[in-house]
Amino acid sequence: MDRLPEVVIIGGGFGGLYAAKRLRRAPVHVTLLDRRNFHLFQPLLYQVATGGLSPANIASPLRAILKRQQNTQVLLAEAADIDVANHRVILCDGALPYDFLIVAAGAQDNYFGHDLWQSHAPGLKTVEEATDIRGRILRAFEAAERESDPQRRRALLTFVIVGGGATGVEMAGAIAELSHHTLRGNFKHINPADARIVLLEGMERVLPPYVPKLSARAHAALVRLGVTVRTNTFVTDIQADAVTMRCGEQSERLETRTVLWAAGVRGSSLGAALAKTSGVELDRAGRIVVQPDLSLPGHAEVFVIGDLANYSHQTGKPLPGVAQVAMQEGRYVADLIQQRLRGGMLPPFRYKDRGSMAVIGRNAAVVDLGWIRFSGFLAWYIWLLVHLVSLIQFGNKVLVLIQWAANYVTRNRSARLITGENPLPLGCTPDTEHAQRL
Amino acid sequence: MDRLPEVVIIGGGFGGLYAAKRLRRAPVHVTLLDRRNFHLFQPLLYQVATGGLSPANIASPLRAILKRQQNTQVLLAEAADIDVANHRVILCDGALPYDFLIVAAGAQDNYFGHDLWQSHAPGLKTVEEATDIRGRILRAFEAAERESDPQRRRALLTFVIVGGGATGVEMAGAIAELSHHTLRGNFKHINPADARIVLLEGMERVLPPYVPKLSARAHAALVRLGVTVRTNTFVTDIQADAVTMRCGEQSERLETRTVLWAAGVRGSSLGAALAKTSGVELDRAGRIVVQPDLSLPGHAEVFVIGDLANYSHQTGKPLPGVAQVAMQEGRYVADLIQQRLRGGMLPPFRYKDRGSMAVIGRNAAVVDLGWIRFSGFLAWYIWLLVHLVSLIQFGNKVLVLIQWAANYVTRNRSARLITGENPLPLGCTPDTEHAQRL
Repeated sequence: MDRLPEVVIIGGGFGGLYAAKRLRRAPVHVTLLDRRNFHLFQPLLYQVATGGLSPANIASPLRAILKRQQNTQVLLAEAADIDVANHRVILCDGALPYDFLIVAAGAQDNYFGHDLWQSHAPGLKTVEEATDIRGRILRAFEAAERESDPQRRRALLTFVIVGGGATGVEMAGAIAELSHHTLRGNFKHINPADARIVLLEGMERVLPPYVPKLSARAHAALVRLGVTVRTNTFVTDIQADAVTMRCGEQSERLETRTVLWAAGVRGSSLGAALAKTSGVELDRAGRIVVQPDLSLPGHAEVFVIGDLANYSHQTGKPLPGVAQVAMQEGRYVADLIQQRLRGGMLPPFRYKDRGSMAVIGRNAAVVDLGWIRFSGFLAWYIWLLVHLVSLIQFGNKVLVLIQWAANYVTRNRSARLITGENPLPLGCTPDTEHAQRL
Repeated sequence: MDRLPEVVIIGGGFGGLYAAKRLRRAPVHVTLLDRRNFHLFQPLLYQVATGGLSPANIASPLRAILKRQQNTQVLLAEAADIDVANHRVILCDGALPYDFLIVAAGAQDNYFGHDLWQSHAPGLKTVEEATDIRGRILRAFEAAERESDPQRRRALLTFVIVGGGATGVEMAGAIAELSHHTLRGNFKHINPADARIVLLEGMERVLPPYVPKLSARAHAALVRLGVTVRTNTFVTDIQADAVTMRCGEQSERLETRTVLWAAGVRGSSLGAALAKTSGVELDRAGRIVVQPDLSLPGHAEVFVIGDLANYSHQTGKPLPGVAQVAMQEGRYVADLIQQRLRGGMLPPFRYKDRGSMAVIGRNAAVVDLGWIRFSGFLAWYIWLLVHLVSLIQFGNKVLVLIQWAANYVTRNRSARLITGENPLPLGCTPDTEHAQRL
């Protein structure tokens, strides 16, 4: 070739960013495309949603991360579609030709057909959703402070988290800490510790991918924090003022004003567009079923990695949607492209599971490294260490350590701001009598 | 009285908060009302608008600040009107009776009748405006990176700040630092240092309230930073793609996509409502003309303080809208209420000017303490010290010091995130040819 091969990467999450970094010395021209100007450290987004960290603590500008990488440009743009026949990514304002394409567009919340639930039960995928959730939680406490009717106050102080995976467990633990410790003494008419935090899980235990022993430990830690854990429980409806659920034959309605969705994700809508243009298979979660080398069937020059990929060739079921998988896939694809340019090839992708961990509030976590499993303070400490080291890779995030240390000592969550269009409490309706009571 | 007197304070800015804190041991029941759940340290808002600090760094939850103050409750609500005849504050959802009322509702941007300019030239009064401005600046660089037409690229890299007071000078300095240092090497197709930062001031010098010598020093420091300063220049129109200005007889049109408004403020709209119900006088800037004891004419139990008050009894012209004035007024009114409850009174309010200061980028500031005036690094250092001490009063903000130290050493502005509804660059219009060029 007269010119350098063009490698286009869609998405600056863990998969896309690791692929880009791995290509830093390759004889290619890399374009990393993202709708956002920053890489987001999603595993800590629940800390933003509960006021412990600021968005900037867990986000690093993509340009800053890649500024010393000479062969790489960052493009702030949205990929609308992929023209696989003509090797072009279709943008809102043009088209971007590629020789190799890495699609790492990630996932979005999956409401399993109940898209109306979204407005009542936001998920936790973006900075905006995290600050929205933070505002919802804080506004509920504010409204409860002003509410004289005991039943409505009870509903305002009820927080329901749907889904007992890592995100749900972490959110439930953090909200419990917020209400039982951080907000202590902040209100005159309510005791924030009266808040009811209810975690709903459809399977028979929380953290279903973990071994039962660790699920039991996590369950016990949640109960110690004051979380009501309800397993074998399915949500059948979500409305503005209540969640309806089913456990076995029993149906129950729980009045609440704050529902958070952590029940699952599906592939980004770009996956559906790609499936349509290329005729490949999407699984039920909207992910692209990829070849053993992570390529798109029939298109050896297109790769799909991370949460958008369904890679089942190793264990017979899809690899989990976690950062480790995306990072390893990104590196593999970057290596494969370089091998191909040299006329070589690589064996199929193999995921090396380095273990998984979830945190349940202060001092408690569960860690499964495969050869050893443990929980408690040591697990929490390791969780902290691993996440900090990962964060620091993406820029000058030493401050997060200091912020955490400060939060730990003071039990403070200083980022508990209500921002956005409506900063006023929930249910601000005329009630002269009550206001006069205050 | 059988019950404690009710003191209602509208607004948790410097004036309202200092009044509330001063009443902590008074035999009264205090209600601090604010639309926001946090006190905002507005003097540093320009740092949020330029990516140096996160909103949470300069905001402290009002409940956290006041949680140990037994006689005080915080109410998250918006005052719609004041029923002075019946001593009630009208909320969106009720009414709040008072025995004493302190109106500290602050100011909003003043477009001097050109309200259409607001959408093109946002001001800097709220966290949302600061993150909006941050996004506008960063999106302009992103769009310039993708723009092939030199004239349009030039317009995208032109940043106009209207108003050469402290806020305008600080914004211009911070944008100059962002473009000349922080963003260096971040782009492949543009040099961010080519950005043109233009500061427009209608008077004959920047920082008009300062002595001419300090204005000249500030002017020189801005020029050293690469800012184009144009004095004696009035804006006659602002459109989406240009600013029209007039200097003497000459009219000029400057193409730009980013205009920031720092040309003045007027009293909050609650002031107009209060003037209407109570029949008192509003000045041209929408401020309430108050009595020598800061009370509302004809209503000795209502006080207006801070940016909403026009207090001209001391010097013949209104006191400036700065934190020091609001804080001293808040303390005075709190003391006066306590004196009145004891049957006493106080001499008229006197503002004790402790000096003023403005910062112009890294290492440069101007300080006027009345008895001494200076500029340069020492002034900058004193500015930093004074602001940090003030910040720390409102909670555990030691982290801001560390963040600043880190920013100073690394010249980094790690909070440069584009958030909100439209994170994509400005002018995302179809242009296939250009995208293919990339």
